[in-house]
Amino acid sequence: MQYNHCMETTIFEKIINREIPSHIVYEDEDTIAILDINPKTKGHTLVIPKALSRTVLEMNPETLGQYFAVVQKVAQAIKDSLKADGLNILLNTESAGGQEVFHTHTHIIPRFTHDEVGLNTGPHQAYQDDELIQYTELIKSYLS
Amino acid sequence: MQYNHCMETTIFEKIINREIPSHIVYEDEDTIAILDINPKTKGHTLVIPKALSRTVLEMNPETLGQYFAVVQKVAQAIKDSLKADGLNILLNTESAGGQEVFHTHTHIIPRFTHDEVGLNTGPHQAYQDDELIQYTELIKSYLS
Repeated sequence: MQYNHCMETTIFEKIINREIPSHIVYEDEDTIAILDINPKTKGHTLVIPKALSRTVLEMNPETLGQYFAVVQKVAQAIKDSLKADGLNILLNTESAGGQEVFHTHTHIIPRFTHDEVGLNTGPHQAYQDDELIQYTELIKSYLS
Repeated sequence: MQYNHCMETTIFEKIINREIPSHIVYEDEDTIAILDINPKTKGHTLVIPKALSRTVLEMNPETLGQYFAVVQKVAQAIKDSLKADGLNILLNTESAGGQEVFHTHTHIIPRFTHDEVGLNTGPHQAYQDDELIQYTELIKSYLS
């Protein structure tokens, strides 16, 4: 496990500790949800577990249920309050995945028909020959 | 609650019931994970709860813990087996959010430094004047 980004205090810890201001839409003992100030669409919210984990892969599996129940609740509230047509619920891990703050967080992005969020566009890859079987067997071998 | 897409049998039910073939990387009593045959990157996997819900918003909150523990486990296996540099873990709800099959599923997309997945690019919006406060209060009012 790498902790190269982890030992520094992140902006989210400072927000949780009220060392810097934020726009809090929800908070309980274990979780805080704030507006992203550089939103994909207005209302774009980050749901952050207060306990530090670097990415969702390092979260304690026993706390996932409680955390994602909050994500679900906040997502429903965003959809209802903003009358959104849909949502994206997104976790990025590592820089290659677009993660910028190394403290687990889930993006909830309200979506509207004909908005310009390009999240579901962009190129796809194509499997060649036996690659579908090769990839299946390779991933499966790490799960048995 | 709308069920306009829900009453039809989806492709995922047919996959779960072995009525059509798929590339299964993981399966247990409650969950199945298959390769997306139109992947953003090779190894792009869909984790599907067998119990039917239209979107993650309609999932039973009590089953979220078990489900996301599987998502976490499969994500870790994808990252390790494919030596991915990062991941995106993504749920889309409704057509406006990019949902194509109306049976809850989570995308796990392996990411590689300098790949061409445009998921984290694209335009952002900017809050004007008091909008940050207005959006905060509006969402908050649905959570209290």
